[in-house]
Amino acid sequence: MTATLGTSPSVSAGAAKLVDNLAANARELRCDVASGDAGERQIDLGANCTGSLEAGRQLGEICMGGLGTVALTSNSGLERWPLGVMVHSTNPVVACLASQYAGWTISEEDSGFFALGSGPARALSRVEELYKELNYVDHHDKASLVIEGDKAPPASVVKTVADACKVNARDLTILYAPTSSLAGTVQIAARVLEVGLHKAHELHFDLNNILDGYGVAPIAPPAPDFVKAMGRTNDAIIYGGRVQLFVKGSDAEAQKLANELPSSGSEAYGKPFAEIFAAVEGDFYKIDGMLFSPAVVTVSNVETGSSFHAGKLAPDIVDASFA
Amino acid sequence: MTATLGTSPSVSAGAAKLVDNLAANARELRCDVASGDAGERQIDLGANCTGSLEAGRQLGEICMGGLGTVALTSNSGLERWPLGVMVHSTNPVVACLASQYAGWTISEEDSGFFALGSGPARALSRVEELYKELNYVDHHDKASLVIEGDKAPPASVVKTVADACKVNARDLTILYAPTSSLAGTVQIAARVLEVGLHKAHELHFDLNNILDGYGVAPIAPPAPDFVKAMGRTNDAIIYGGRVQLFVKGSDAEAQKLANELPSSGSEAYGKPFAEIFAAVEGDFYKIDGMLFSPAVVTVSNVETGSSFHAGKLAPDIVDASFA
Amino acid sequence: MTATLGTSPSVSAGAAKLVDNLAANARELRCDVASGDAGERQIDLGANCTGSLEAGRQLGEICMGGLGTVALTSNSGLERWPLGVMVHSTNPVVACLASQYAGWTISEEDSGFFALGSGPARALSRVEELYKELNYVDHHDKASLVIEGDKAPPASVVKTVADACKVNARDLTILYAPTSSLAGTVQIAARVLEVGLHKAHELHFDLNNILDGYGVAPIAPPAPDFVKAMGRTNDAIIYGGRVQLFVKGSDAEAQKLANELPSSGSEAYGKPFAEIFAAVEGDFYKIDGMLFSPAVVTVSNVETGSSFHAGKLAPDIVDASFA
Repeated sequence: MTATLGTSPSVSAGAAKLVDNLAANARELRCDVASGDAGERQIDLGANCTGSLEAGRQLGEICMGGLGTVALTSNSGLERWPLGVMVHSTNPVVACLASQYAGWTISEEDSGFFALGSGPARALSRVEELYKELNYVDHHDKASLVIEGDKAPPASVVKTVADACKVNARDLTILYAPTSSLAGTVQIAARVLEVGLHKAHELHFDLNNILDGYGVAPIAPPAPDFVKAMGRTNDAIIYGGRVQLFVKGSDAEAQKLANELPSSGSEAYGKPFAEIFAAVEGDFYKIDGMLFSPAVVTVSNVETGSSFHAGKLAPDIVDASFA
Repeated sequence: MTATLGTSPSVSAGAAKLVDNLAANARELRCDVASGDAGERQIDLGANCTGSLEAGRQLGEICMGGLGTVALTSNSGLERWPLGVMVHSTNPVVACLASQYAGWTISEEDSGFFALGSGPARALSRVEELYKELNYVDHHDKASLVIEGDKAPPASVVKTVADACKVNARDLTILYAPTSSLAGTVQIAARVLEVGLHKAHELHFDLNNILDGYGVAPIAPPAPDFVKAMGRTNDAIIYGGRVQLFVKGSDAEAQKLANELPSSGSEAYGKPFAEIFAAVEGDFYKIDGMLFSPAVVTVSNVETGSSFHAGKLAPDIVDASFA
Repeated sequence: MTATLGTSPSVSAGAAKLVDNLAANARELRCDVASGDAGERQIDLGANCTGSLEAGRQLGEICMGGLGTVALTSNSGLERWPLGVMVHSTNPVVACLASQYAGWTISEEDSGFFALGSGPARALSRVEELYKELNYVDHHDKASLVIEGDKAPPASVVKTVADACKVNARDLTILYAPTSSLAGTVQIAARVLEVGLHKAHELHFDLNNILDGYGVAPIAPPAPDFVKAMGRTNDAIIYGGRVQLFVKGSDAEAQKLANELPSSGSEAYGKPFAEIFAAVEGDFYKIDGMLFSPAVVTVSNVETGSSFHAGKLAPDIVDASFA
């Protein structure tokens, strides 16, 4: 099904203001701003700088193209890990799927560069199949690309990205934070709603019927080991995340979505992600895709007034992962 | 008793900035802005548009005339319905009673239009008896009227409202959201503190002695049926709402207020509001007015240091109502 | 050990914007702004005015020099006292120790004036020994001094303060709120992270190794009696406060910090602070300094991925204190 999001605001315009604000406060946020070889602006939020939880919070909002709010909470719902993020969006499909989702595979053979790009630049380049379904088109003269990683791409890749986004390289900002950084762990937790939306899409729920939503997830303590850090940030959502979606359509569809959405429906569910990853010898694509979703889900149908609850938090697994 | 609020800031001035901001971001908030036949600005937050939780949050702040804050929380206190609003105000009597309370009966025989007006325009028109007691006078050249309903008033009513507020119709903004909309359910939950203040007034507590306060309530899932939606939004406060008031005066008065304020003191307490409403055959005025108050109350007397707690949450009734 | 904070932003510049904003909204916040005899600006947040919780929240952010956020929460973690503050800072050592900590003893024999000054002016005057260790230098032409008390200092003291800060008296703002005021009780609760940082320093933990952190504490109901008010605001942190610190260094140091940081490690722990204070006949310096710290601590080492938890909330003691 094709989501008709054509009249939605520009996520790149929304993000541009937030990116400029972050750059202006880089010193307070302990981030580094630099000019890259292609003339692009690079913002390091945690690779060669300390960064901060707050920088990650702002990065989460940048990922959603200004159509969402990320707030720190001292009540994630996990007793031992109360620090969390609460995310909500006025337009979750555009904010989370058309912008925040890390769906742009950016790789270059010569340099060996590889990254999954996220954020509003994706909706300018529209290189992903997903955009055919989203039917969301953005046009803006400034592009913002977010990379979960420890370095900005080389100039050759930057030029390719800028071209794909139809902007000058000097109008492109690359923001990057490693999974293991303070900012990284926050911006990934802030994907709890996006992860729910993405699985809803995988389950073929009509995206036009998702009207609003929010999510909350604990913030995983950073770990220097990449697999451990990746494991924890996944576990924060899979075993510690909650979402509520407000939808329209039939109750049958809403109930089916609620029942199928929680991570517990996956055959891979039940162990910290790093263990699951090790069991498949690091081959990410061998892991059941249905695992990637929040632990607890409420789907509220505004056309009938019915709500459907499913899933539950798994604090023991979160503890095992974060310890 | 007469509250001496004469030196308080203009709620219409405070709201005007927030209304302009909402109008400027209407597309992001999925609201519609239009010009009415009398030249007034109409903002639809959920009748013929999707609206959003965030639009309702902003509407809640507009209702309080810029003297209060409404924040979404992922910890309402209700286990199955954790999404809630937290409300606080620097001046709850002015923000909640002189502005937010839906006390202005706006009706016209010819058109059959009927609505309860809320928000800062009330303090410009001062048509309600309540203002004699509040002793709060506002003057401003822009008026903002909030209507819980699915349509803006006809031009004839708009002119009457503008005249009552002593503004030109083109300087009047009418904001409306149905009870059953995303924005509506949030803005009503955001009345939890106002409902507490209003009952304190009904109990003849001296309003001059209420200094500060906050409230929290779950956000009811929208229901398309008006009675069900009204029931749920009432139940969110009556069975799921909490407030803390900071007062001065004697401990005897503070304790009496705490004891009498919770909804559980009402003879009507104990069933979802929609059932109570059905039992009186829809005659709202047959329902005990003491029912309309938060479930849990703390009154803290800053002149003695004493606090008084009363009431308790009724999660089972909230579940029965929201299910 | 000397913390190398030399490149950190100016806390006085950060605070100046917040102070101007508070002054501009003084009427909404129920605060009074006046000119003192030395030409300084005085802002009374609760001595001879009502003030508000919100004024205290803003005062908390001013104390941190614009490098931290104070938010009200309806989930402090204490069941009977859910109203609380959540504090976080992008740079807790600078925000909390170089600015927020009430470490500047301001006294004058002639007038008998005595106060402990806090806030960003401290980092301009640098009269405290602590600054030798912090290695943080600030320069700014506007100074903001915060006093927990019921009056501004006399002109002679104001001149001494301004001179020490190397600013004109007319560029100095003195903000004051009594312990027993609404704003006072909030701004002291907002010290929960600072209290944790200060004890970490007392325990000789290398401040360079503290990267980020947050804290949460209940807001004590104001009490008119100074000792009771002081007792409650201390108890809010000692028995009701939680912090998480993100550090680097060895796990041995992180674990030692976690084990030693909670208030429960103090010999004085176990009774409301006002009782402890009475037992030493009001001689503050006879109280074990190790008592002054949050109840619950998590220390997360970002260089190893290990987290260490210690301490627990003492809701019964908080209830005994706040009742």
